[in-house]
Amino acid sequence: MKKILTQFALLLVVIASMSMTLRKKQRIVFFGDSITQAGVSPAGYISLIQKSLTEKKTADNYELVGAGIGGNKVYDLYLRMEDDVLAKKPDVVVVYVGINDVWHKSSSGTGTDLDKFEKFYNALIKKLQAQNIKVYICTPSVIGEMNDFSNPQDGDLNQYSKTIRKIAGNNGVQLIDLRKAFVDYEVKNNTNNEAKGILTTDRVHLNEKGNQLVADEMMKALGL
Amino acid sequence: MKKILTQFALLLVVIASMSMTLRKKQRIVFFGDSITQAGVSPAGYISLIQKSLTEKKTADNYELVGAGIGGNKVYDLYLRMEDDVLAKKPDVVVVYVGINDVWHKSSSGTGTDLDKFEKFYNALIKKLQAQNIKVYICTPSVIGEMNDFSNPQDGDLNQYSKTIRKIAGNNGVQLIDLRKAFVDYEVKNNTNNEAKGILTTDRVHLNEKGNQLVADEMMKALGL
Amino acid sequence: MKKILTQFALLLVVIASMSMTLRKKQRIVFFGDSITQAGVSPAGYISLIQKSLTEKKTADNYELVGAGIGGNKVYDLYLRMEDDVLAKKPDVVVVYVGINDVWHKSSSGTGTDLDKFEKFYNALIKKLQAQNIKVYICTPSVIGEMNDFSNPQDGDLNQYSKTIRKIAGNNGVQLIDLRKAFVDYEVKNNTNNEAKGILTTDRVHLNEKGNQLVADEMMKALGL
Amino acid sequence: MKKILTQFALLLVVIASMSMTLRKKQRIVFFGDSITQAGVSPAGYISLIQKSLTEKKTADNYELVGAGIGGNKVYDLYLRMEDDVLAKKPDVVVVYVGINDVWHKSSSGTGTDLDKFEKFYNALIKKLQAQNIKVYICTPSVIGEMNDFSNPQDGDLNQYSKTIRKIAGNNGVQLIDLRKAFVDYEVKNNTNNEAKGILTTDRVHLNEKGNQLVADEMMKALGL
Repeated sequence: MKKILTQFALLLVVIASMSMTLRKKQRIVFFGDSITQAGVSPAGYISLIQKSLTEKKTADNYELVGAGIGGNKVYDLYLRMEDDVLAKKPDVVVVYVGINDVWHKSSSGTGTDLDKFEKFYNALIKKLQAQNIKVYICTPSVIGEMNDFSNPQDGDLNQYSKTIRKIAGNNGVQLIDLRKAFVDYEVKNNTNNEAKGILTTDRVHLNEKGNQLVADEMMKALGL
Repeated sequence: MKKILTQFALLLVVIASMSMTLRKKQRIVFFGDSITQAGVSPAGYISLIQKSLTEKKTADNYELVGAGIGGNKVYDLYLRMEDDVLAKKPDVVVVYVGINDVWHKSSSGTGTDLDKFEKFYNALIKKLQAQNIKVYICTPSVIGEMNDFSNPQDGDLNQYSKTIRKIAGNNGVQLIDLRKAFVDYEVKNNTNNEAKGILTTDRVHLNEKGNQLVADEMMKALGL
Repeated sequence: MKKILTQFALLLVVIASMSMTLRKKQRIVFFGDSITQAGVSPAGYISLIQKSLTEKKTADNYELVGAGIGGNKVYDLYLRMEDDVLAKKPDVVVVYVGINDVWHKSSSGTGTDLDKFEKFYNALIKKLQAQNIKVYICTPSVIGEMNDFSNPQDGDLNQYSKTIRKIAGNNGVQLIDLRKAFVDYEVKNNTNNEAKGILTTDRVHLNEKGNQLVADEMMKALGL
Repeated sequence: MKKILTQFALLLVVIASMSMTLRKKQRIVFFGDSITQAGVSPAGYISLIQKSLTEKKTADNYELVGAGIGGNKVYDLYLRMEDDVLAKKPDVVVVYVGINDVWHKSSSGTGTDLDKFEKFYNALIKKLQAQNIKVYICTPSVIGEMNDFSNPQDGDLNQYSKTIRKIAGNNGVQLIDLRKAFVDYEVKNNTNNEAKGILTTDRVHLNEKGNQLVADEMMKALGL
């Protein structure tokens, strides 16, 4: 009988310890557009973060989940948030959106007005925060890599980035200022003022260095 | 004592009858853009329906509520549905949207892609139906009144109208085909092929006859 | 001596007849966009006209010249008219333009306003007529082949077609109403209401039947 | 007789001197859009240059002619160049265009592609130079006055400005870099980062200080 009790106590300890492990495993959802959709590919920024966690031997503490869909704008995220994010019960959500909101204005006449961009972003954050999810939001990286402010959408991207910084402040969420990180990188490294090929393959989608820069900025912000 | 009981019984009857009256009063929310926002003005289509109900002495059976905001597209309706519609506990919702989804493509580069228009519309209807609300949806009236199919957005409005008809069928909601009603009216009455002034003041927003046509179509569909 | 004179007289007659033949060889320049650029390919509409002339044994009377460049709008034609048309001393010019003027509004934000379309077209015609060139102008065929007027640019194409018909009337040039011919054909033959594959490969550029229809309409108009 | 000869000689001198004066009066045409159209109004930049010439007592040496039309893009200038500029036999032409080429992309879907902007600009300059006209070309000032590069069209205006600088170099014409002058001014003076009201009334059209800045830059470049 005593033996059984001891064994039972042991079992409880094991369960408790398992449960602690389970509790410790933070689920982080990356929520965004085609860049985030590609983020789970072997060379994508989410895979790079995973790789770094493994090297640091902290991979057991986190579960990284990609939730990116090509062509998404802020209102698309709002529409699919329940199914694609809340249903996964995340502890942390990193939102990385805005490029298509600007870009689609000229490519298909279906961009997002700045005031509505802000409204949807605020609503998105509020719904996430209502579930006690810790939220991080990113400024949009680039549409064109020239560093003399002559990429056609530079002004508009800067405008939306300013609004995102304001949204972060207003909602008490942490900002990951990718736009600033990318522009700073271009100024230092894009010596021939190329439109693509430095951090992107096609002016928008990230190459290896672009994915690494995003991974680095996110790990810094999330303390990973 | 008997008297008191009698009076009490009478009171119960009065309360019951009041309650029946209350139960019978259907709340109808009109959900849309600037046309619906103007619908509650004295000459607007909602006021015209109200006036007609009064004349028919059925006004006690219905409560008409305007929920239109200028510039709204389908995703704007989706965003504010909870506050502006569900919170009002309607029995019936009439959705009249789509003009800005098409128009803003060319006026500001911020229209709505057809596939996303359909997605948001379906999601909107499902949320309304989940509250046992009876839903009616309208095709968009006009952007320009010429009847020889040479208003610049005619093709696109027809395309969105076809999608709305399909949405109605797929979701089992009743269609109010304003686009058809307007085009038919123009063919019959717009003998000089004018771009405005027949049913609209400015190619889009309704004049008296336009508001009457919408009111008539809606009353016919809703059986008012 | 008499014989020699006779032979010389005969030679003169031959030369005169040759010269008449040469004078009779009409040079026809087809001036337009990518559809006309493809018109000189083996299956293109200009090649089809050439083939028909050969079959009718009238090929010696005409020289057909393609002058189409992809992406061209009416003002592009105006800019290159001197080098690409006037320098070739044509007797006849067939202008077939307008699709990109409408299409580029939504695809790249660089379409042509209707009033400026008309201005450039009038200026183009006047410069051609000043060289005693006989001018034919075409309405734009299609952007999308559905026959229920639900191709997004249908209204705008109809609007530009109306303006082209007016321009033809105002300038005394002959109209080749391709828009009408295409729409009539679609109504009769596009029984499944397809967006492409009837007269085009991709909603705009012509397949074999599309090229044949254009060739037929042009030959009819030019009396070839 | 001697007296008569002397008087006649005197007359010749007077005529010659008059003729020299006439020859010395340089005709300067300002060729552009609504900003130049407003340039001839009392507070406009052309009037300000005129006023300055009067103060410097050099007004007799110059004839300033405004040739601005609202909404003009580079191809509109090309179309009306013969009537509105060449017919006036100018010695100097100052071209100030590009704002609408960028702006109309988003406001009406009818902007100008950069490659075509360059083509028309080159053709315009060549036609002016063929008449021995001295040509000055300006970069576009501003669409929005914020100085943190967050006006939506900042990137595109910078891109077109770079192309204009290249065009100036390629064609040996003098550049008046209004874009640089405006941006420099905003950085120094627009301390609250306002979108309008510093050099413009409405983000585009010039107020008194804006007109003065353009007048100053032009007088400096033209040596007036």
